Amino acid sequence: MSQRLTIALDAMGGDHAPDMVVAGADLARERFPDVQYLMYGDSARIEPLLSKHPALKAVTQIVHTTDAIAGDAKPSVALRTGRQSSMRLAIDAVASGQAACVVSAGNTGALMAMAKFVLKTLPGIDRPAIASFFPTERGESVMLDLGANTECTTDNLVQFALMGSVFARTVLGLVEPTVGLLNIGSEEVKGHETIRTAAARLKEMPFPGRFYGFVEGTDIAAGTTDVIVTDGFTGNVALKTAEGTAKLYAEFLRRTFQSSLMAKLGYLLARSAFTKLKQRADPRRYNGAMFLGLRGVCVKSHGGTDAIGFANAIGVAVNLAVNGFNDKIKDEMHSLGGDNSLPDTKAAAV
Amino acid sequence: MSQRLTIALDAMGGDHAPDMVVAGADLARERFPDVQYLMYGDSARIEPLLSKHPALKAVTQIVHTTDAIAGDAKPSVALRTGRQSSMRLAIDAVASGQAACVVSAGNTGALMAMAKFVLKTLPGIDRPAIASFFPTERGESVMLDLGANTECTTDNLVQFALMGSVFARTVLGLVEPTVGLLNIGSEEVKGHETIRTAAARLKEMPFPGRFYGFVEGTDIAAGTTDVIVTDGFTGNVALKTAEGTAKLYAEFLRRTFQSSLMAKLGYLLARSAFTKLKQRADPRRYNGAMFLGLRGVCVKSHGGTDAIGFANAIGVAVNLAVNGFNDKIKDEMHSLGGDNSLPDTKAAAV
Repeated sequence: MSQRLTIALDAMGGDHAPDMVVAGADLARERFPDVQYLMYGDSARIEPLLSKHPALKAVTQIVHTTDAIAGDAKPSVALRTGRQSSMRLAIDAVASGQAACVVSAGNTGALMAMAKFVLKTLPGIDRPAIASFFPTERGESVMLDLGANTECTTDNLVQFALMGSVFARTVLGLVEPTVGLLNIGSEEVKGHETIRTAAARLKEMPFPGRFYGFVEGTDIAAGTTDVIVTDGFTGNVALKTAEGTAKLYAEFLRRTFQSSLMAKLGYLLARSAFTKLKQRADPRRYNGAMFLGLRGVCVKSHGGTDAIGFANAIGVAVNLAVNGFNDKIKDEMHSLGGDNSLPDTKAAAV
Repeated sequence: MSQRLTIALDAMGGDHAPDMVVAGADLARERFPDVQYLMYGDSARIEPLLSKHPALKAVTQIVHTTDAIAGDAKPSVALRTGRQSSMRLAIDAVASGQAACVVSAGNTGALMAMAKFVLKTLPGIDRPAIASFFPTERGESVMLDLGANTECTTDNLVQFALMGSVFARTVLGLVEPTVGLLNIGSEEVKGHETIRTAAARLKEMPFPGRFYGFVEGTDIAAGTTDVIVTDGFTGNVALKTAEGTAKLYAEFLRRTFQSSLMAKLGYLLARSAFTKLKQRADPRRYNGAMFLGLRGVCVKSHGGTDAIGFANAIGVAVNLAVNGFNDKIKDEMHSLGGDNSLPDTKAAAV
């Protein structure tokens, strides 16, 4: 690996690939001038796009492949038949040390299956989780898992809590992040057996941060805790419900400003303030879901995003790579493994 | 039971009881002049409040009891020790036929446990579900279960889908309501085994309405289907996540209008339009969660609501009682039970 940070990009993943991948990388280049790129995909399509961005072209190497993973491919099929796909080759680059991280806007399930297979999980982590930032009344929170694990054991949830806390310390720079476990009430009698046991364990074990206890759906947007831990099914539903609700209220707002002449005039006066709000609430700002728990940095961009969103996903990858999040997780798991707080000592010893 | 519709009210349930119960009933009285009330609770506290509303007093009978269920009481304890509580006596009134429905803003778990024990479930329904309306881009949808059943079997989900569909036909007046099953993707390979099996069953069985298939979190606010079916854990998280997100955007909106002089002036011009939006998005409008699947109408009001919200919950109860929803469910289950579409023929034969 060279002195400069190298990022592997799946140039063929996403609804608007490869155009938005190249345009997004060019936006990211302005923000991170010391980064260089490996772009995996069809050079006949990437080359002409790159030619329009000479500064990006100077720091980019195309690795040609015509194979790409379809958006609706089953993860198991993608894993078996996609060894020469742009997605797989980009992940391989992280495994071989050629790149510090990989970013793809392609099929989430396939990306997770391949990343798990190629990169393997970190010591002490049984299963990786998908994490992302959420806007809150207090700023931003991190939630995981957002869909990698439909069903979770107590061990999984405890490990997610640890990873989330280390993430908040390493990447967000919080000294003592608070971690909440998503439930349907704050009382200890509520919820599944699995999360009640996880809460009991988290309360007793040494923890890098502060375990807050149970939080509810309303606490996500309120920003009650810095980190919210849940299984991938619930997390995915919560993420998409929040997205849908935000979209609904943006639509209500639009209709309201259109509903009368006075309201239209009011909008003209308030427009610059609303432009700021729009930027603040722009879903592209929160693009870039992190796969935590792997021996390598892998970031998933929203499939339908544009260049601005994809550039943000690259920013998330840079952030994770530069802050050495994976090393911190390893250290943390190692120190916890030493006093047998983690049951899975076999995995921790790998 | 008299000619007039009688509603049993738990006068002691909720953060602001009994004041908001009496004030809410008085608001409901204006909307439903033919309704009369049985108010269960401490007459020494209710009587002076009622005296301020002579028109309500004329159609209300107080049933005195000093026992009330605490907001944090465990459902099993409430069930065992609360036989003389205002909540229990109000439910008993529905069982004995004295009242057509019961409304309480008290402890949800206790209310569900007591209602299930006293009223029993309808033939063919193993477990009741909590349902509520959601604002959507198209109007309103109904979602269930919102928290009665933390874990659900395939049978439960299939029954919830049937109840939701009959509800949409009976109470919302839709001819062929669409019903979606909440999942983390629209593909058939995604999600828990339980919901995949439920979807397969719903696709094949005769169904009062149209089974749409899987929906995702974003579909709730989009209004993709008229009814959304999920387990009580996921539904509760989705409900509260949507509430929290709506609150966050209202706060963003408030800050935006306060952020500059121009924005403040803009608000003054658009104010009347925003007053309408506020009414449209007012959570009190959606107050009143329905317990579906019981042999009697039971409505749960939000514990922290005020008189306006409680009056809406009474409105929901009136709507259910007047439309004979429970009879329709019985008919529907009976017709389905006849061709063995439902596996639980024992329950259906009760």
